[in-house]
Amino acid sequence: MSAEVTRRHLLRSLGAAGGAGVMFEAMRALGVAGTAEAETANYQAPKRGDFITTGRVAPRVVILGAGVAGLATAYELGKAGYQCTILEAKGRVGGRNWTVREGTAETDLDGHSQYSRFAPGQYFNAGPARIAQSHVTLDYCRELGVPVEAFVNQNANAYVYNQNMPAPTRFRTAKADMYGYVSELLSKALDQGALDQRVSAVDKDRLLTFLSDWGAVGPKADGYAYRGTDRRGYVVPPGAGEEAGTPLGAPDAISDVLARQVGRNFSFEFGYDQAMMMMQPVGGMDAIPRALVDAVGAGNLRLGAKVTRVADRATGVDVVFSDRYGVEYLIQAEFCVSTLPPHVMARVPTNLDPRVGAALRYPVALPVGKLGLEQRRRWWETDLRIYGGITATDLDIVQIWYPSSGFHTQRGVLLGYYNVGPDALTYSALTPAQRIDRALTQGERVHGPTYRAEYASGFSVAWHRTPHLEAGWVEWPSRTSGEYALLNSPAGHVYFAGDWLTYEIAWQAGAFASARRAVTAIHQRVMAS
Amino acid sequence: MSAEVTRRHLLRSLGAAGGAGVMFEAMRALGVAGTAEAETANYQAPKRGDFITTGRVAPRVVILGAGVAGLATAYELGKAGYQCTILEAKGRVGGRNWTVREGTAETDLDGHSQYSRFAPGQYFNAGPARIAQSHVTLDYCRELGVPVEAFVNQNANAYVYNQNMPAPTRFRTAKADMYGYVSELLSKALDQGALDQRVSAVDKDRLLTFLSDWGAVGPKADGYAYRGTDRRGYVVPPGAGEEAGTPLGAPDAISDVLARQVGRNFSFEFGYDQAMMMMQPVGGMDAIPRALVDAVGAGNLRLGAKVTRVADRATGVDVVFSDRYGVEYLIQAEFCVSTLPPHVMARVPTNLDPRVGAALRYPVALPVGKLGLEQRRRWWETDLRIYGGITATDLDIVQIWYPSSGFHTQRGVLLGYYNVGPDALTYSALTPAQRIDRALTQGERVHGPTYRAEYASGFSVAWHRTPHLEAGWVEWPSRTSGEYALLNSPAGHVYFAGDWLTYEIAWQAGAFASARRAVTAIHQRVMAS
Repeated sequence: MSAEVTRRHLLRSLGAAGGAGVMFEAMRALGVAGTAEAETANYQAPKRGDFITTGRVAPRVVILGAGVAGLATAYELGKAGYQCTILEAKGRVGGRNWTVREGTAETDLDGHSQYSRFAPGQYFNAGPARIAQSHVTLDYCRELGVPVEAFVNQNANAYVYNQNMPAPTRFRTAKADMYGYVSELLSKALDQGALDQRVSAVDKDRLLTFLSDWGAVGPKADGYAYRGTDRRGYVVPPGAGEEAGTPLGAPDAISDVLARQVGRNFSFEFGYDQAMMMMQPVGGMDAIPRALVDAVGAGNLRLGAKVTRVADRATGVDVVFSDRYGVEYLIQAEFCVSTLPPHVMARVPTNLDPRVGAALRYPVALPVGKLGLEQRRRWWETDLRIYGGITATDLDIVQIWYPSSGFHTQRGVLLGYYNVGPDALTYSALTPAQRIDRALTQGERVHGPTYRAEYASGFSVAWHRTPHLEAGWVEWPSRTSGEYALLNSPAGHVYFAGDWLTYEIAWQAGAFASARRAVTAIHQRVMAS
Repeated sequence: MSAEVTRRHLLRSLGAAGGAGVMFEAMRALGVAGTAEAETANYQAPKRGDFITTGRVAPRVVILGAGVAGLATAYELGKAGYQCTILEAKGRVGGRNWTVREGTAETDLDGHSQYSRFAPGQYFNAGPARIAQSHVTLDYCRELGVPVEAFVNQNANAYVYNQNMPAPTRFRTAKADMYGYVSELLSKALDQGALDQRVSAVDKDRLLTFLSDWGAVGPKADGYAYRGTDRRGYVVPPGAGEEAGTPLGAPDAISDVLARQVGRNFSFEFGYDQAMMMMQPVGGMDAIPRALVDAVGAGNLRLGAKVTRVADRATGVDVVFSDRYGVEYLIQAEFCVSTLPPHVMARVPTNLDPRVGAALRYPVALPVGKLGLEQRRRWWETDLRIYGGITATDLDIVQIWYPSSGFHTQRGVLLGYYNVGPDALTYSALTPAQRIDRALTQGERVHGPTYRAEYASGFSVAWHRTPHLEAGWVEWPSRTSGEYALLNSPAGHVYFAGDWLTYEIAWQAGAFASARRAVTAIHQRVMAS
């Protein structure tokens, strides 16, 4: 067991057993005081020297799919000189990592063709659009020289809009009110002694001090009442001279605030993967697959290459694919790594154990839709003082995103919906033009007529109706019923990889992590042979 | 009364009287549904046409100080053709808007000389360093073509560190624990009926639903117990295959969490001016004064020009200044706008009413210190997964900031302290080298030996010891005792402007707002004459 693995195991067991204090002491002892375990601490890429020093020849590997998992597999294997060929059925790389720009064209499985009329320089990340600080994706951006910038996943000036509200509410107002009322109520309960069995007198005092500041409530003499502060926002902001500002008025009654569910989305920003800050590549998420292709070499990539048969053989694997003209080719390699979505791979004829095919059909493919809405003018910045971030609604558009780049320029592309499941099916049942119209109608409920008046062009994606992908992502009904483990093991010389084989589904980090896992497994097998 | 003013007054009165619902209905009726009042809605810049159409000649104005207020005054007056001359005692423009770069040099009032050895491209905003979305500062950035980018004012991966903690705590962990325990306690109290007099049965159910999600607490059968979730963070993050991730262990007991005051800084991000998102100019805050100088014309600016006398006359004002060589010059103008800090202006001999001098001495100048610490390697990104943001401590350094630009490049400049009052005096009593040493020792308590090991160079500012500024900002013991109103009125032909004459003290927005106010007052007077 390597020193690295030992350290990792130690930290894991300590973390499970003790609290933060124990962890820190342990980490201090291990010489990593104040640091967190990096996601990728114990990954070692294969090296050319591994072959040179042992007199082996780097094997040939055929990779199915040029999404992030496939490209990363080729990239990592390439570090040791593996001869990789990537077969990609679509006419572009990236898979779901897809940035729609001026001229982007796509025809979906229902025959809906779209052609993007975005103005030059405008773009929309139709797949992954944000990177968590903790994700290995950022390590790849650093390693590949892909510049990154902040992605705004949370904004106090963005809105909460539920249909039972008389008007959209800024997140800053929603938080002030919910936290104010929570503070008032808990302060009252503490003061009445209702929680004396749970908290000591000292704890009670400390809690009351915290609540007073955190919820901005009144003193005990005022019953700890929440009456609103300028945290809610201003009607007229503070200014010069005698302009002290006019804060928004008193909050609505607690019953109204609760009935409107203004706090419905507060926990989103606490999520391990969603907490601020988040990052994005400068100029579009597709900078990542483009950088990977540069590193892998475009010559090792076949676009428009649809896999028609995979056969595991005694000493390797045969892969047959057809090109755009239907001409079939055979590639023979020592290994195959399939990064196709499981429900797509399930339809490829193979000679693998039937349980593999059954397992590939087991995860549930989810309908997911996104829409980019180019606007002629960045009215959310000039009129609403919203610089990036997300408005959360209970409409079928679910969210509206404001762009995190191009601040103060003329145009911008909003995300007009991001929905999963039934809402995604609602929109994918429409024509692209109808989707835009419906999303504009919904968005007007939040932003008024400006939303439609400044609309310039739009481009939607229904991932479940997108050829060769056919889902936003998948869900495992169970990870312990055998299928997940089976597909995480090689089927002869065939390996599977993708975010769907990880605990980071729907994140590029999952694709990278799975690629590394497959690469490690193959390389260990080669080195052991 | 103009239509704009009428609308503003209506909104103000509605906002004061009613809740958000009333406001929205009113705004909808006024055709501004979904919009907020822009900060600057009713400012009208003077226009050249104002003179041309009335046959008047644009007057001459001498402006004292080339900080943001002074430059903005010249810029706005210049739009109508006023002939402005700006006198600046320092050898540079910007005032407290000061970006320290390679080669920046400064000698303070105690004779401490510093010369910045930052590597090329590295910088540190020693004065204002962030812009609120609502601030008029962003309108100037747009108008002047100063590109802006996100400033990270809050980061779940940054730390809270209080000296009574066994180890620094990530904000994500601190929030999970405090919100978890608050949720548990309030749920218990609600369930026990302790708050039945305040909330209805329906409200209670809604609150319990909210608390369950927001605090991630257990069900009623488990006493709504908070036991921790992956919101706290991971020891080993989720990954591929069977790597489900190992979350940080169970939270510490509520008594420990409260005793360590992990929630001490939570309300910071609710502040009207501090809530995310915030913005910064690309490449350094001094892009703003540089753009203003470009617009005003460098020829209208005298650097190294120290004002030695201001005399109000029957038809204008005489201003005497000395240049770097002590040679005195007289400028005669119709008006003077002094944007010097009040305590500095108080020492300039004038013939103004003695009450003006007394009023200038009334606001209290605050000691404020900041330190830029260049590091050889961005270990906070690579080792700690912190991309921008602020660590909050109860040490005398108060805060550590991680840079919001240059992600993934080699070097970066941390903010090593930002303190006000006694802590600022503690550091300014030291030599610059001692300040760095002390700040490194304090920072090591948060970040361990890396903090000192990777230190490359540093540059500190003690604003209260900086020539011609002599304070971070000022405080008014009272704004109603006459002094504030007096200085917000002209003293003959002399006007005062600066953030200190606003309700946005210490913000550039205050400087801009005050400049606009002085410009409006002068222009109205000229047009009325």
